[in-house]
Amino acid sequence: MKILKGACIIGQSGGPTSVINATALGCIEAAFASEAITKIYGAAHGIKGVLDDRLYDLGLELQEELELMRFTPAAVLGTCRYKLQDFMKDDVDYKNILEIFRKYDVRYFFYIGGNDSMDTCSKISSYLSQNDYECRIIGIPKTIDNDLSGTDHCPGYGSAAKYVATTCMEVYRDAMVYDTGSITVLEVMGRNAGWLTAASALAKYKGVGPDLIYLPEVAFDLADFIHDVKRVYDRAGDVMVAVSEGIKDKNGTYISSYFSDTAKDRDAFGHARMGGLAGSLSNFANAKIDAKVRGIELSLLQRCSVHLASKTDMEEAYTAGKMALESAVAGNTDKMVAFKRAEGVEYRCETTLIDLIEVANMEKKIPRNWINEAGNGLRQEFIDYALPLIQGDINVPKQDGLPRFAKLKRIMTREI
Amino acid sequence: MKILKGACIIGQSGGPTSVINATALGCIEAAFASEAITKIYGAAHGIKGVLDDRLYDLGLELQEELELMRFTPAAVLGTCRYKLQDFMKDDVDYKNILEIFRKYDVRYFFYIGGNDSMDTCSKISSYLSQNDYECRIIGIPKTIDNDLSGTDHCPGYGSAAKYVATTCMEVYRDAMVYDTGSITVLEVMGRNAGWLTAASALAKYKGVGPDLIYLPEVAFDLADFIHDVKRVYDRAGDVMVAVSEGIKDKNGTYISSYFSDTAKDRDAFGHARMGGLAGSLSNFANAKIDAKVRGIELSLLQRCSVHLASKTDMEEAYTAGKMALESAVAGNTDKMVAFKRAEGVEYRCETTLIDLIEVANMEKKIPRNWINEAGNGLRQEFIDYALPLIQGDINVPKQDGLPRFAKLKRIMTREI
Repeated sequence: MKILKGACIIGQSGGPTSVINATALGCIEAAFASEAITKIYGAAHGIKGVLDDRLYDLGLELQEELELMRFTPAAVLGTCRYKLQDFMKDDVDYKNILEIFRKYDVRYFFYIGGNDSMDTCSKISSYLSQNDYECRIIGIPKTIDNDLSGTDHCPGYGSAAKYVATTCMEVYRDAMVYDTGSITVLEVMGRNAGWLTAASALAKYKGVGPDLIYLPEVAFDLADFIHDVKRVYDRAGDVMVAVSEGIKDKNGTYISSYFSDTAKDRDAFGHARMGGLAGSLSNFANAKIDAKVRGIELSLLQRCSVHLASKTDMEEAYTAGKMALESAVAGNTDKMVAFKRAEGVEYRCETTLIDLIEVANMEKKIPRNWINEAGNGLRQEFIDYALPLIQGDINVPKQDGLPRFAKLKRIMTREI
Repeated sequence: MKILKGACIIGQSGGPTSVINATALGCIEAAFASEAITKIYGAAHGIKGVLDDRLYDLGLELQEELELMRFTPAAVLGTCRYKLQDFMKDDVDYKNILEIFRKYDVRYFFYIGGNDSMDTCSKISSYLSQNDYECRIIGIPKTIDNDLSGTDHCPGYGSAAKYVATTCMEVYRDAMVYDTGSITVLEVMGRNAGWLTAASALAKYKGVGPDLIYLPEVAFDLADFIHDVKRVYDRAGDVMVAVSEGIKDKNGTYISSYFSDTAKDRDAFGHARMGGLAGSLSNFANAKIDAKVRGIELSLLQRCSVHLASKTDMEEAYTAGKMALESAVAGNTDKMVAFKRAEGVEYRCETTLIDLIEVANMEKKIPRNWINEAGNGLRQEFIDYALPLIQGDINVPKQDGLPRFAKLKRIMTREI
């Protein structure tokens, strides 16, 4: 097979994670090692950087700073939420992308993101191939939501899950120290899939975690919620609840919208903006049950707390980036890197490739039979699934007792 | 000097910290090692456990579980917020305490807490000595607020400060990744003293932290706040703000009360309940500046995240507990353990004892000249003060990748 020589662009998209830069590093280091790659560009703020001709020349970075990317949270290249139109309807962006690719002789495009990013990859791939421009496009999964189909799990999830589980254990202990009863509601990210909220069940598995867990996979009912909380409170004197920001009632209405009119706000992808549910639910509980209540929103912390990253996750994130580049150079395109878990008690995952079209815009949810019948807790199947993903600690390089994050020069290919 | 033989009671009071149990452990291990101590009791929920005759016999605990207390956040003995009356006005509680002390032959009382707890210690000490009951009473400082006078700093502060600084760095990176402007407001605990919020300046010192920091020490003005935010936003396109929950205007009115009527709620000590300010301030900013805003409340996480504890703090916390017991056995009473920092560039602190009455109900604030003139940032003096306190990492013992906290049997001295 002939080697396709040319430049590569690496982009990061959507909400960042603790290990999204480990993936970029895997890709960059493999690119440096490959004879096929003539130049390594980083797109400033994902696909928007391509559209605006804002590319960083990563070949100009210091190696020691690049290496620190492994331990640096949040997208070092910048990220975006930008939805490409269908090119049959509007091909302005696509023409633009093709022009930039031609300008820099880009033959490899790697996009690190979630569902929407895989949709972006798939569309660009179709357009370029219809326009006879040879470019290999690989999507690399990244999401704390863990909701991509076709892969056992997604890089970013293990670290966020470890953060949620550990924090639940610590908060549980703190919330229970007073002799007065308390109700603590912890809000975890996840619009439509409850994977991350479910990680709180790992804390419960260790005996120090939420009594009740509510996920978007099961219709939420306020009366049932109060009934559940009251039952635990009357028995134990304290209750801890973990709840997905995206819980919905049986009609599919977000519970958060019960308490707020800001749920009408939508982001660029038409997704409802979330947040504030923990406070609303705990206040609602307080009106029915006389106890000290507290709502805690894990907010950005759950996706950027690299100090509590899972070593397993960080290594897999790096491998996914490396494998993306190597398989593209080997001739693959229009694919996403995926993880396949081996059978058996001991955890082993291998990387594989799946068609982008199988992933784009799909959402993988927690199987209903991994959730208990009442819909307020997780079964052992989930524990067995999630526990291996949070294993291993990392040591973030420190300076003055504080993390030393990568400082990239971010030199643009052109003056802006 | 004659050795005073008898039982000791150890109690924990007020809001817990990541290292409050390290202090209790220091006290317990020194008690086991001392010939003067005949029995070691833990008061269930602080002074309330004494009043209710709810004491744990700590001699019945497994040593390996006791040792895990070092890495276990939140008061393992339970805590309380309970204010003793002046005994000249109402001595019911005091008679009760004396009776319990006599019942168990308690000759040593150690109370781990903040200002209010030192007040409790001081009052009990006066009452017992007026009633000719020999009992040595030592207060041991514990507060993330760092607001006790007479000591260089308080155990619990270093770990919380390290959490705040590290989290600020991580969140700062996450908040800045999009190409759209953002305003992020981070709310940190601290009613009247800004020590913990000021720890966010350590993140800024590393170049990855809040642009603006507002403390209770300086009168807060909403118009100035908007002016400051707009100035940074116009220059940098993103703004991160750290704010103490207890910021007040020039009349002493809590800013949080501007946005809420729940600020009327008071706890048992008459302190206003806080929280929700980050969301209110960011919404307020959003009404004046068109940007993506986010309010983040660090809530309980900042005081229970033992996984990010400072080794220096944890060791000092242990030492404070050990020293309390040893100095009581040596004849001291009516004192609080304090830290005295040695002169010189290298950080060294020694423990000392100060009179309880000098500490009780006093609040130590950040010197005004450690805060910049505009009142929205910290000077190098604060960095030099705080940086040594957050040094060193600890390794929390793990099981299944999650912390293994102490599991105490908590066997009561009587059947309840």
